[in-house]
Formats: sequence, structure tokens, C-alpha cells
Amino acid sequence: MTSPDSEPGIIAVDWGTSSFRAYRLGREGEILDRRSSGAGILRVAEGGFPAALQAEIGAWLEADATALVMMSGMIGSRQGWMEVAYRDCPCDLTGLTSGLQRLDWPGAEVWIVPGLIDRTTPGLPDVMRGEETQVFGALPEMPGESGLICLPGTHSKWVTVSGGTIAGFATYMTGEVYDLLQGHSILGRLMTAAPAGPDEWFAEGVARGASDTALLRLLFSARSRVLDGQMPDSAARGYLSGLLIGHEIAAALKAFGEKPAEVVLLGAPALAKLYEAAARQLDCPVRLVSDDVVAGGLFRLAKRFGKT
Amino acid sequence: MTSPDSEPGIIAVDWGTSSFRAYRLGREGEILDRRSSGAGILRVAEGGFPAALQAEIGAWLEADATALVMMSGMIGSRQGWMEVAYRDCPCDLTGLTSGLQRLDWPGAEVWIVPGLIDRTTPGLPDVMRGEETQVFGALPEMPGESGLICLPGTHSKWVTVSGGTIAGFATYMTGEVYDLLQGHSILGRLMTAAPAGPDEWFAEGVARGASDTALLRLLFSARSRVLDGQMPDSAARGYLSGLLIGHEIAAALKAFGEKPAEVVLLGAPALAKLYEAAARQLDCPVRLVSDDVVAGGLFRLAKRFGKT
Repeated sequence: MTSPDSEPGIIAVDWGTSSFRAYRLGREGEILDRRSSGAGILRVAEGGFPAALQAEIGAWLEADATALVMMSGMIGSRQGWMEVAYRDCPCDLTGLTSGLQRLDWPGAEVWIVPGLIDRTTPGLPDVMRGEETQVFGALPEMPGESGLICLPGTHSKWVTVSGGTIAGFATYMTGEVYDLLQGHSILGRLMTAAPAGPDEWFAEGVARGASDTALLRLLFSARSRVLDGQMPDSAARGYLSGLLIGHEIAAALKAFGEKPAEVVLLGAPALAKLYEAAARQLDCPVRLVSDDVVAGGLFRLAKRFGKT
Repeated sequence: MTSPDSEPGIIAVDWGTSSFRAYRLGREGEILDRRSSGAGILRVAEGGFPAALQAEIGAWLEADATALVMMSGMIGSRQGWMEVAYRDCPCDLTGLTSGLQRLDWPGAEVWIVPGLIDRTTPGLPDVMRGEETQVFGALPEMPGESGLICLPGTHSKWVTVSGGTIAGFATYMTGEVYDLLQGHSILGRLMTAAPAGPDEWFAEGVARGASDTALLRLLFSARSRVLDGQMPDSAARGYLSGLLIGHEIAAALKAFGEKPAEVVLLGAPALAKLYEAAARQLDCPVRLVSDDVVAGGLFRLAKRFGKT
């Protein structure tokens, strides 16, 4: 069975550190089918990538043997299937396309998207893999394809785009620091309440985190406020989440320089909601965009590549 | 056997979270004997404090049954032997003395020093147990018993003293964040080199950490600099240590407001040396004081208490 019109279909794959997502796309880039799993690159045994990909999208390839597979994310890192060299910032869609690398895999024609490196700040280089593709998926929805995009997560990215080009970006280790504090620090024993929604303690943390730069001090206040009876144990988790997110947003807005018309928030819904609440509290308009846009980004790359 | 002059001797005990230190003091507070062990309060089984103390200082008590035992540190916390209420800042030696609590222990007359709480910044209370006693030990060496004292550690303390009174203080979770990053983060795999001395990468970290407030971003630069080939793997540990210490010192000096004539550095030698190097780099004169001054602090408390 081939595509009805003999044009090859596109399978878009976002293969990250801890998760695998794939989309089967139609001729206009519409999502026909999707699947996701926990088979991130760190959970695949050495030499196991071909079998893992076959297990995930084999049925789709059986239905369309000519399908083009476009993959982005950490699958192109040193720990992934094949290392694909970073492209430099600033970088537009054409620049990113020129860095695509073909995988040697008999199962299908597979291309891996390069990551980006930002060397525009001397001594503070920054890197990403996967987020650049999400950004190119979100760009058509932004006025003038310009503005500020936040991709919250373990390593949050703040990306500045201008006229369809990724001008630069910065990574904040917010999610990882939160996880470290919860899992292994003296504050962890306080952080036992259910996952924090944007409650009053989250808001208090956002206000503190955004207004005071001494983060190493602010973190300890989660403990001292509880010891002083100013805050119940159950509030510590929301408060710390707010501290870190507020601190990140304030720093990122300061680095952007001007007040953005809005920040495009691109990520998983639960986390995006926290960032939305924090940004609104800090008087910054936001717009939420589903992280499914990665499929659109991979579709745009395939089009520019002349493959459809 | 009793003290030659029938005055009771003093045994000074600094009993912290992870270590136990004791000093047998002479009439002028001079250190006649000392011992230390890893029997911090978290390593003593429930109900085991009396036996632990007996094991540590029993021989001294046998030689001088009338000795007065003065204990400071986390032994007076909720997780310790007996919880002793915090005293409020500002607090002088007399104020601290008035909060001493006697332990019910047949082995000797034992008093526990209260911790301090600083409520002078609304919404940012701070607490310490043990460091206040070290500070009162160091004060006589400071001109006018005034200035700024840094006690580096897992939870670094910066203490402002004025005319013999502890005016206020702030805690920075620098050491714990460093340990978390090394032990459990994505940066940990880079932090394998020998413990960092103040090398060139440490200095580079100090400069970055002190000049940029976006700590969550700076942390990630340890990884991106290595990925970009700007820094060898082996440099990451010193660089991160410098980042965190530089960030702490810059924040603490900013909070102090004016430029201190010097900062008194009070702590274990290896860590104090790192802080000394960082402070000098940031154009801040420092003076190192041994953390043995805790014995002097406990001696001063006993004197003020009228027990010698």
C-alpha cells in the first residue's frame, strides 16, 4: 500500500532524552495519527535504536514503505543514534535544513535535524536539540515570525526569533534544580504535598523569586518560613516551584531587554499552566501553544528540503 | 580528681548535623584537649544522645566530675536532644545567655545554647544553630566587635555584627546546591575531577557567578562550554564551584550595602581557602579565623552566665 497520490508520506519523530513521540502527517502537514512512549534515548540499550524505531513506527512504514522519516531531538546527540553537528545562530529554516543528516537505515529514508548552538554571548555558549524544530513549527503563528518563545522543562529554553530566524537562546536549569531539591535536598522532606498548582504559595514564590536575585538565599527561605510558622509544610512545594519559575522568567525578560508584546509558551500543558500563571503575575502577556507543533516544524523542514 | 583551684572546668561541645567536636578548656578559655568525630545528630539513633555524649567526653568527666558542659549546634533543634527556642535578632551575648536551657542528664551539668532567628526582613526569616556561638567566639578579634562574618558550608551564613551584637544574618544554600549538582544532576558526570582548588576555572566561575544574576542559566553553561569545546571536562567542577561561591559572595556583599573593611571568614580550612580566593578576586579583603573559635564562644557564654 502506498499513499493514494503516490507522494511519499511524512513521519515526524521527536526523540528526546526521556520520551519518544511520533506523528504520521498528511499532505498538508495535518496530523493523521500519533503515538508516544517513554522510550527516550537514555532508556534505549546500546545499539538498540534501529529496533526501537521499528517497534514504534514499523506499522506505519508497512503501510507506506516510501514514507520519509524526519527526526529531531537528542537522537542527534553524542548519546543518540548518530551525532549531527550543531548549526550556528542566527539560523533560519533554510540554514537548519542544510544541516540535515541522513541515517544509514534500511527500514526507511530517515533524516536527523541538527541542534543549534548560540555563540553570540562570549563565554556563554548555549545548545539545544529538538526545541529549534518546535520553534520553527510555532513561528508561522507569530506576527512577523518574531518575538520571544519559552519552552519550559527540565532545561527551559528562551528563544528570541526575528523575521523567521532564531537569533539566539538561553537555557535555564529550572526543572532540574526543582527535581534535585525535591528528591535529594534538606527541603525535600517538606515537598511532599501533591504537585503544585498555581496556588497562593506559588504566587508568593513567584513574587519573591522575580524580585530578589539572591536565589541561593531564597531557596533556604522555604525551610526557614516553615520553621518560623509563616508557612505550612504543605506550602513548600508550591512556594519553591514559584521561586524558581519566577526567578527564571524575570531573568529571561531582563535578558530580552525590551518588554515583549507577548511570550509564546510552548510545552506540556501542566507545566505551561504554571508558567502562564507566573508570567501573568509578572505582567507579561502569554500565549499557550501545544508542543505538538514539533510535527509542523518537521513538516516545514521536509518541504524546504524539497522532499514533498 | 578535681580542677587544681576547685573552679569547675568547662567542656565546650559543638554538636552539629554531621559532626561532633568537643574541647576541654582551661581557666582562661585555652584549649587543653580536643576531640572530634562523625557522630553528628543525624547519625545518632533515637534516644542515643546520652550514651553518645558519654562515649565522647566520659573520660574528661571522670577526671573532673564538676565540669560544666556547654553545647551549641543542632543538638538544640527539634531533631536534637532537646529543642531550645530560638532567640530573636538583634541579639548580644547577654541575650543569648538568657536563652540557655539546662539538660536533664545525670552525667554532668549540661546547658544547651539557643539558636537565633532573624525576622528583620519581612517574609524572609532566617535561622541558625551553632554559628551564633562561633560568631561570639570571633567577635573579640574584630575592631569594635563590628563587621561582616561569613561561615561557608552546606548552608553558608553571612552575619552582620555591630558593637558586639548580632544584627542579622542570611543563609545561602551554596554547599548543598553544589553537592546536589555533583551527586545527582546532568552536570555530575562532568564533575569527576579531584576536589577543586582555586584554579583558573574556579576564577572564571567566580567572575561569571558574581557578574550575572541569572544563576539557573549560568549553571547550564558548565555543560554548554564543555560541549562547545571551550572548557575541558576536568574544569567543570572548579568552574561550578566558582560560579556558586562567586554568586553567593556578590549577593551577600550587595545585601550588606556598603563595602566591608574586611570579611571575617570562619570555617574549615579547605573551604575557607576557596572563599578567600573568590573574595580577593572580587576585591574584598578577608581574614581567616579558625572554626575552633566556637570553644571561645562557649567559654564567653559560660563566663557571662556566671558559671566560672
